[in-house]
Amino acid sequence: MTRAIVVLSGGMDSTTVAGILHAKGYEIYGITVDYLQRTSKKELDCAKKVGEFYGFKDHLFINLSFMKEILKDSTSLIDEKLEIPTESSEDEIPNTYVPFRNTIILSLAVAWAETLNAELIGIGVNALDYSGYPDCRPEYIEAFEKVARLGTKPNYAPQIFTPLQHMSKAEIVKKAVELGVPLDLTWSCYQNQEKACGTCESCQLRIKGFKEAGVTDPIPYEST
Amino acid sequence: MTRAIVVLSGGMDSTTVAGILHAKGYEIYGITVDYLQRTSKKELDCAKKVGEFYGFKDHLFINLSFMKEILKDSTSLIDEKLEIPTESSEDEIPNTYVPFRNTIILSLAVAWAETLNAELIGIGVNALDYSGYPDCRPEYIEAFEKVARLGTKPNYAPQIFTPLQHMSKAEIVKKAVELGVPLDLTWSCYQNQEKACGTCESCQLRIKGFKEAGVTDPIPYEST
Repeated sequence: MTRAIVVLSGGMDSTTVAGILHAKGYEIYGITVDYLQRTSKKELDCAKKVGEFYGFKDHLFINLSFMKEILKDSTSLIDEKLEIPTESSEDEIPNTYVPFRNTIILSLAVAWAETLNAELIGIGVNALDYSGYPDCRPEYIEAFEKVARLGTKPNYAPQIFTPLQHMSKAEIVKKAVELGVPLDLTWSCYQNQEKACGTCESCQLRIKGFKEAGVTDPIPYEST
Repeated sequence: MTRAIVVLSGGMDSTTVAGILHAKGYEIYGITVDYLQRTSKKELDCAKKVGEFYGFKDHLFINLSFMKEILKDSTSLIDEKLEIPTESSEDEIPNTYVPFRNTIILSLAVAWAETLNAELIGIGVNALDYSGYPDCRPEYIEAFEKVARLGTKPNYAPQIFTPLQHMSKAEIVKKAVELGVPLDLTWSCYQNQEKACGTCESCQLRIKGFKEAGVTDPIPYEST
């Protein structure tokens, strides 16, 4: 069986990527990081359940608690003094942006992939409904793929697999439903609470996606 | 003062980069990682002393002990069952290669640099006396610099500063001496022992460099 790594946050997008890799018949290795983000316990629980659902061959949970020291007060996903925005802006990157997060996680994934000789690394980045994060854009992924090729042994060149890159959230929901992805096990909300808040930018994107897809979201919300 | 980050291993090359940044008048922030490499205690001690010597504004020591799990038995720098080579090969990458290490460390450095708004990140990679590691080549650094530009906020683009890129070890020794770099505080040996072994590839490169530069190496060796 050909090996694939999936960067799994426990959210809807990365879980759908796991579902796509499963449908393609890969032997899946999951990588999930904890950088003390507000919702880390919730996300890790979800990621663990998704890994079990798909029978991951191995699942690494990596503690990056030092990120708090590196990033200081620069992101609201870690720093609870900063407020999570409920409105998106077309011109500005929201304070939920975590500096260089995707590169850090992808770098760890490539080191593991080279060790395992995995063919590809799946990640749920998305260029449409993506909150304006720079490290979700196709040109960023392309540049990173080049680094992965040049920074590893000459005979190794992992693909950075981004099947959701050009899909809207509604299209992702439809794809997930088609593949039987366990959306009830996923968590998208930026707030650390029992039920999803329904008002943060991430919840709004998710709710809009389900609505446009004509699908009922299986998770409970605080405000709906 | 303009801020600069230096990736500091405690070796001769990265310490010389710190010396170059110091001479240029930067406010220096050091980043040193511990990935449970054989010589980690020795390297961290040296890095700490170098940071104190240059009066770093801040110095992060980052524990990446999970690297052992990611890399399993793929590098002799971590796995003590693998033997450290004493001969270099022109065709093969030695087992001291650590998969994707430079990208992981540089990614952490970029996240910190973006948070600090640092102008550049100094790293002691070297394309001549470099043991054949893929992630020391100029084309790799150039590709990574592009990722650093594309993966961060639009108005931020850190330079990856590699002043030793095209220097031989002898030229590095001369540069270090010229700048008064504390070479006595540095550690290059791959073996975990009190004195440098003098026979591993890294010691051989260092010894050859000092010899060609006509400079006496201030550190003691086991075998000389």
